[in-house]
Amino acid sequence: MSTESEWKRKDLVGIEELSREELEIIYTKAEEFKATLNRKQKKLPTLRGQTVVNLFMEPSTRTRLAFEVAATRLSADVLTVSGNASSLVKGESLRDTAKNIEALSADIIIMRHSAAGSARYLSRQIDIPVINAGDGAHEHPTQALLDTFTLREKLGKDLTGKKVTILGDILFSRVARSNIWALRKLGAEVTLAGPSTLVPEAFKHFGVKVIHDLKTALADADAVMLLRIQHERQSSTHFPSLGEYTSMFGLNEKREGWLKKDAIIMHPGPINRGVELDSKLADSGRSVILEQVTNGIVVRMAVLYLCASYAANLR
Amino acid sequence: MSTESEWKRKDLVGIEELSREELEIIYTKAEEFKATLNRKQKKLPTLRGQTVVNLFMEPSTRTRLAFEVAATRLSADVLTVSGNASSLVKGESLRDTAKNIEALSADIIIMRHSAAGSARYLSRQIDIPVINAGDGAHEHPTQALLDTFTLREKLGKDLTGKKVTILGDILFSRVARSNIWALRKLGAEVTLAGPSTLVPEAFKHFGVKVIHDLKTALADADAVMLLRIQHERQSSTHFPSLGEYTSMFGLNEKREGWLKKDAIIMHPGPINRGVELDSKLADSGRSVILEQVTNGIVVRMAVLYLCASYAANLR
Amino acid sequence: MSTESEWKRKDLVGIEELSREELEIIYTKAEEFKATLNRKQKKLPTLRGQTVVNLFMEPSTRTRLAFEVAATRLSADVLTVSGNASSLVKGESLRDTAKNIEALSADIIIMRHSAAGSARYLSRQIDIPVINAGDGAHEHPTQALLDTFTLREKLGKDLTGKKVTILGDILFSRVARSNIWALRKLGAEVTLAGPSTLVPEAFKHFGVKVIHDLKTALADADAVMLLRIQHERQSSTHFPSLGEYTSMFGLNEKREGWLKKDAIIMHPGPINRGVELDSKLADSGRSVILEQVTNGIVVRMAVLYLCASYAANLR
Repeated sequence: MSTESEWKRKDLVGIEELSREELEIIYTKAEEFKATLNRKQKKLPTLRGQTVVNLFMEPSTRTRLAFEVAATRLSADVLTVSGNASSLVKGESLRDTAKNIEALSADIIIMRHSAAGSARYLSRQIDIPVINAGDGAHEHPTQALLDTFTLREKLGKDLTGKKVTILGDILFSRVARSNIWALRKLGAEVTLAGPSTLVPEAFKHFGVKVIHDLKTALADADAVMLLRIQHERQSSTHFPSLGEYTSMFGLNEKREGWLKKDAIIMHPGPINRGVELDSKLADSGRSVILEQVTNGIVVRMAVLYLCASYAANLR
Repeated sequence: MSTESEWKRKDLVGIEELSREELEIIYTKAEEFKATLNRKQKKLPTLRGQTVVNLFMEPSTRTRLAFEVAATRLSADVLTVSGNASSLVKGESLRDTAKNIEALSADIIIMRHSAAGSARYLSRQIDIPVINAGDGAHEHPTQALLDTFTLREKLGKDLTGKKVTILGDILFSRVARSNIWALRKLGAEVTLAGPSTLVPEAFKHFGVKVIHDLKTALADADAVMLLRIQHERQSSTHFPSLGEYTSMFGLNEKREGWLKKDAIIMHPGPINRGVELDSKLADSGRSVILEQVTNGIVVRMAVLYLCASYAANLR
Repeated sequence: MSTESEWKRKDLVGIEELSREELEIIYTKAEEFKATLNRKQKKLPTLRGQTVVNLFMEPSTRTRLAFEVAATRLSADVLTVSGNASSLVKGESLRDTAKNIEALSADIIIMRHSAAGSARYLSRQIDIPVINAGDGAHEHPTQALLDTFTLREKLGKDLTGKKVTILGDILFSRVARSNIWALRKLGAEVTLAGPSTLVPEAFKHFGVKVIHDLKTALADADAVMLLRIQHERQSSTHFPSLGEYTSMFGLNEKREGWLKKDAIIMHPGPINRGVELDSKLADSGRSVILEQVTNGIVVRMAVLYLCASYAANLR
């Protein structure tokens, strides 16, 4: 079994480059942290005195907040830079912005950026850890880590042969891409489902099934991962209307009957109740959505801990 | 006399539901905290390791800052979520937003929201404390607590029979509503004053006087609470112009002569100098406006402490 | 030699009023702090329990962040108030805003404001320290402190007779004004260079040279301080276009040949690569731009420490 001393990365830029062993190191550390969440004194001194900069060049309250909680639990100081309103950014290259943050003697940068590949690029420009909090439609690795961590809790630590159906807007989704990488590395069988405009056949080269018939896609799933329909990103060409999406692919009480008895329902949030997921199902016993949120704290604590520890040893 | 062990609420959603004894518990605790404000080491370890989320779905720098200082003084970590810019909120129900914050293992939510009743609704949906920082035109309980705490300092701890005149835009004011509840519970006599469009006779059912003649309304007051004229909220139908309001109801040096010698002047801020209050009076010996601000810290510390302590015992 | 006990100011509002001895006290303290930056535990307990309010009435991510890091390193709690979005500010005078922050039992205010003289005005209205983070086109004292601190590291602690050329938009620049004051007090020889519309002859009364021929201005400089061309502030009357500015006054590889072999290049950031400074030069061995950023942390720690210590003794 892998131990945390085998973690040899200062950055987390994507799931694609991680080995199964590296994933296991993260899960093991996250389990340790999860055991501390219900203690009266929840803060650990791990990153005391370190400065974590949340560099969010795309708005995201949810992910920013989760990273802020995770870093705070490790006793780090968290400073937020929002790219939209930022004069730091005005007319300045991303590299210069990051070099400046590093020169401020910050210790870790957590970045969300609209450009695919921006996190990897940055990780090569600066010496401090870069944690990818979402780069365009490329990857959102901590979301995949929390999703697979939750699956391990629910379906058992070995996901080999487990069947996971990802349903919705795969084409535009970094969440889907990171989860496909993670699930394949862990040995799970992945099915992508949704309208053909949002789930192109080309995804088959990732080693997954593509099924446009919802009933078939749900039939033998152990877990269904719903994706948020991001109507703000899409032009009208991908599906005619939200209503039509819901009528064709929304997970509702009738379609719940197509699921296996123990199949669980996941969603990265925020939920569009009544669009991709019926409100009653979101609150049903099948839903593990709020546990995903809580697990998001502990996997992020694990990632911050591992990358910071490795970077500290490099100095 | 009541002691803090008799506090049996995880939430503070309004003054209406509090007993006089509960108000006294808050004042007593606030007095204790006030004694610590001038120490060199002002922080108390009370909420160390706890996460307080400031969920402000309406903008408010002033109240947000006061709660942030109060929570920080108790050694909590404070995270801010501003509703306007928030993707947490986009298309998500208030309940889902709050459930998510709870799932992030936050310990307390302080909420400002435009909808009356939102704080009470939320307090029933989640297990962690909800502190109302203003819900529509309904209540702003901590403002009333700091106002009455200041009155007790200035007029004596027993407010029975003390005369308080609230002057201005009562109709739209959650500050007025919370103060009416608090003052009536404490035995004070309340007079509402201002133009009839802003101070309807219907408020008499709260057990208060309604007087539209300013001289009469000020004549025997021990304290005058001014309300900010919120011109951004009002249509032109409630009064013709700011100038006309000032000429009819603005508290100026001439009208100060109508006050009793020791009567004090209060204002929740921010002051519109020269509109509802003459600038010289705002800085005069009668004004306790800045003491109100300081007392806002200690009553909020008391509320956070009491609700968090009770919630911790429930777990 | 001056020691920190000789610091007798609660505020830092400008360089103009400081003596050379006071500058030396700041540099000495900043050197001490710089030695702590690379320790594993970077935080010092100096301002533990104190509340620093970042009152930024003009947007500035860069300077806000640098002050936030500096205050955090001294263990203070930092609260940010952004003027643009601030209801604290709406219809409220600057004095009232500041008095309110003081009444919240804050310990230090760091202020950026568009009005020249606003920091000095405020420092006389309230008892707690006011640190000027830029007031209109008047002063930006901590920028000049970090610039001269960097010069002392590079050219030697005694700057007497050292030649510094400031190049660019002097007319609109508070950075230039503060640096002129600081460099003259330290005995350096200052040359201002740039187009005559941006570098008026009137600046000669500060005891500096004004040279519009770039080759002459660069010829014997020990250091060149570039200023950012702030195209958002300027009307088209000051120079015809960015391209024309660059062709006439941009520092490029050819013009680098006009510099002395050891001359260094400085810039307050953010850099407009390819406008006032060629990209290769920005990353060359001559550039000390990122060291300036790091030094910005330690001079601000020194200023916070000195002003807070003096204010504490006054109480």
